[in-house]
Amino acid sequence: MPELRKDPITGRWVIIATERAKRPTDFVREKVQIRGSGFCPFCYGNESKTPPEIIAYRSDGSLRNAPGWSLRVVSNKFPALGIEGSLNRQGEGLYDKMSGIGAHEVIIETPDHHKTLAMLSPRQIEDVLWAYRDRILDLKKDRRFKYIMIFKNHGEAAGASLEHTHSQLIALPVVPKRVLEETGGARDYFNFKERCIFCDIIRQETESGIRVIADTPAFIAVAPFAPRFPFEIWIMPRVHQSAFEDSQKQEFEQLAVMLKDMLMRLDKVLDYPAYNYIIHTSPIPESPNEHYHWHLEIMPKLTKIAGFEWGTGFHINPTPPEESAKFLREAQVELTS
Amino acid sequence: MPELRKDPITGRWVIIATERAKRPTDFVREKVQIRGSGFCPFCYGNESKTPPEIIAYRSDGSLRNAPGWSLRVVSNKFPALGIEGSLNRQGEGLYDKMSGIGAHEVIIETPDHHKTLAMLSPRQIEDVLWAYRDRILDLKKDRRFKYIMIFKNHGEAAGASLEHTHSQLIALPVVPKRVLEETGGARDYFNFKERCIFCDIIRQETESGIRVIADTPAFIAVAPFAPRFPFEIWIMPRVHQSAFEDSQKQEFEQLAVMLKDMLMRLDKVLDYPAYNYIIHTSPIPESPNEHYHWHLEIMPKLTKIAGFEWGTGFHINPTPPEESAKFLREAQVELTS
Repeated sequence: MPELRKDPITGRWVIIATERAKRPTDFVREKVQIRGSGFCPFCYGNESKTPPEIIAYRSDGSLRNAPGWSLRVVSNKFPALGIEGSLNRQGEGLYDKMSGIGAHEVIIETPDHHKTLAMLSPRQIEDVLWAYRDRILDLKKDRRFKYIMIFKNHGEAAGASLEHTHSQLIALPVVPKRVLEETGGARDYFNFKERCIFCDIIRQETESGIRVIADTPAFIAVAPFAPRFPFEIWIMPRVHQSAFEDSQKQEFEQLAVMLKDMLMRLDKVLDYPAYNYIIHTSPIPESPNEHYHWHLEIMPKLTKIAGFEWGTGFHINPTPPEESAKFLREAQVELTS
Repeated sequence: MPELRKDPITGRWVIIATERAKRPTDFVREKVQIRGSGFCPFCYGNESKTPPEIIAYRSDGSLRNAPGWSLRVVSNKFPALGIEGSLNRQGEGLYDKMSGIGAHEVIIETPDHHKTLAMLSPRQIEDVLWAYRDRILDLKKDRRFKYIMIFKNHGEAAGASLEHTHSQLIALPVVPKRVLEETGGARDYFNFKERCIFCDIIRQETESGIRVIADTPAFIAVAPFAPRFPFEIWIMPRVHQSAFEDSQKQEFEQLAVMLKDMLMRLDKVLDYPAYNYIIHTSPIPESPNEHYHWHLEIMPKLTKIAGFEWGTGFHINPTPPEESAKFLREAQVELTS
């Protein structure tokens, strides 16, 4: 008998196939491999092929928009939203629209075309996290923006159009519906219990242990109780904090190690899968707060989303999180720095 | 400047790329082709390889679970939910779960392996619609079910695992979140305006005409104002009706023609794309009602869904609906019956 499980934050139901559970090798898909052929605008020497850099980390005193950087942030060449102008909300009969104002940036995580994020050193990954923070802090000053989303698409199946490892940032003039669902659910729980639901989840998961993948003083990685996707991972800070960008130096240090560890485990267990990750953080207007707890969700792309999922928002997950957690927990990876 | 548009029913925002709008030939993807190689459990003679038939349309007096049928409904061999048992709602600390009770059926639309739904005659497509209705009416008698969803995955990219043309039905013990969003939005609008929002949309679209693809006495096909996907199509009955299964004979006749017409136009304009369609109909406990209006949504699968869409629920659509409507409206297709 399959099991219906409810995500305690959003109220989203998931069908967990408990009987014909899929093991890592049951998922047929292409391994993500870096081909390295063809022109790449994110490699050294091609800096002029991207929009001008917004920030770059350089230790050698090299020039802007020239080689020598270790990390570089540029505007997306084909931005989904435009940075200039006012919101200009309008009606059109019963419809509503506004100008597509926002920021759309690309974080080029390393000049090395042949490395994935999982292959970077914890120190380099920490720099990626600092870059996320630096950009969020800067964009928060712009009062038009209500939400800043950081995400990464790794591999073609996960929607990456360039293989050179990078993350993206989108600053939005509205708080998106899925974010409202999550923050709203967390607020309802807080109003009822006077406790943060994520803090409660961390306590319950730590106690039971069956869905824990790794546990460190500052972060815990779990397979969530009602995952939409097989082998989904949530990395949560142990201490309550509503916004990612308010994290401290030692937290970024530990998060970098944890993130590398999780990505290496996914590569090991699932043979280099495509994945998306998203930083779930508080909307700008309501941060800091007691009810929302920032975290990072990693979603390997192993299954196809079809009509049923689109119509219902229900996901069918063929691997119970207790099993995916076991596979990931038991994987042997070596974290060299 | 891109445009942010809000779906008036669900409140979902969509980014419409108005400048670098993609034309039909800009989408790179595989054409859906029927290969016909290998064993197929949906072909004549293989009836014993599926679970026993629930209903079948036979005009020649042939036997159950044997050749001679023109349409056949069977249980899904690998059901996402099980039909036997009680709901058995339980807590697990702060989590909630229940048994995965439900029905999961497959509608095999024709014995002909080499035909897509678009290639069937309007009369055959009408039979598919009658089969949907027959199964809904039967399953509605089971008081455990709150929602019945009919959907179709066409092509591997849209999640179809067997190429022999078929649709699916899932009966669920809860009303899914995405359905609640839609019915809730429609109810809010009704409470405010005392009119059905879909009826208002039909009026406004008919008047402006820019997003209308086809218009018949009983049905209208439009590219919705805030489509998540390029070339998305909604087919709506002109007369208010909350549930699909309450349609009359002449409506099914006209819907069959309209559905064939739209699928042929998609094949013509987009060169045989993969697609999903979903019948959006009222939840069982609240039907009939004045606020919700059943309709069919067709979503061609042309773009990849990546981290941004997962995190926000925001979709980036590179083709304005005014343009996709124009391409689809102007396509020349011949509807032979």
